[in-house]
Amino acid sequence: MKKHREGRKRPNPPQGFYCRGRIWIEKEGETYLGYGRIILLTKIGELGSISQAAKSMKMSYKQAWDLVDSMNRQASVPLVTASKGGRGGGGTQLTEAGEAAIREFNRLLLRLETFLTEETSGLQL
Amino acid sequence: MKKHREGRKRPNPPQGFYCRGRIWIEKEGETYLGYGRIILLTKIGELGSISQAAKSMKMSYKQAWDLVDSMNRQASVPLVTASKGGRGGGGTQLTEAGEAAIREFNRLLLRLETFLTEETSGLQL
Repeated sequence: MKKHREGRKRPNPPQGFYCRGRIWIEKEGETYLGYGRIILLTKIGELGSISQAAKSMKMSYKQAWDLVDSMNRQASVPLVTASKGGRGGGGTQLTEAGEAAIREFNRLLLRLETFLTEETSGLQL
Repeated sequence: MKKHREGRKRPNPPQGFYCRGRIWIEKEGETYLGYGRIILLTKIGELGSISQAAKSMKMSYKQAWDLVDSMNRQASVPLVTASKGGRGGGGTQLTEAGEAAIREFNRLLLRLETFLTEETSGLQL
């Protein structure tokens, strides 16, 4: 999986020292949800296709499929379902569980931002 | 700088889904303190030598020196000082500011752990 560019510069960083951070969810030592996976799920929901979603993220189809497979294996119900053939040639769908996972992770990101802002104000450097 | 192995497996991960995270301190888009830098400062304090500290972390002297230089440039007072020559051939010292930076970052890590534990209990997945 392409590494999240955690070291990238912000366009307008705040003055002085500030805290930054990253968060992800694991199960038994394996990543379940992280930034890249949530973007991928979101794109799948928007585009209805793993290959289109992969393309939009400059990721190979195999990489994207492996990530979806990892999430689906770990989740109690699949986050993404695919149907082959039939009218319209089948398609890929983000399930309700997939939508809920995106919401939950985005809420986590908001709370992390709050935590980082608080820690930044308390920094003694 | 060697990437922190954020994806490494824990020996005894907790049951079910759990949150993990990383935190670091920046100034104007440049890293000031992070896990690797704090380990380096700690080792410099223990070993009194940048090259010995680098060696203990399997890092090149240049890498270690660049990190120390980056921290010293950003800090209001140097975290590490080096004196050349003189009795004993000079040496490298962690300053009080360096010790304070280690303490501050370690406190931050503890609060991050608390945050992650709280978020783990609140996870709805």
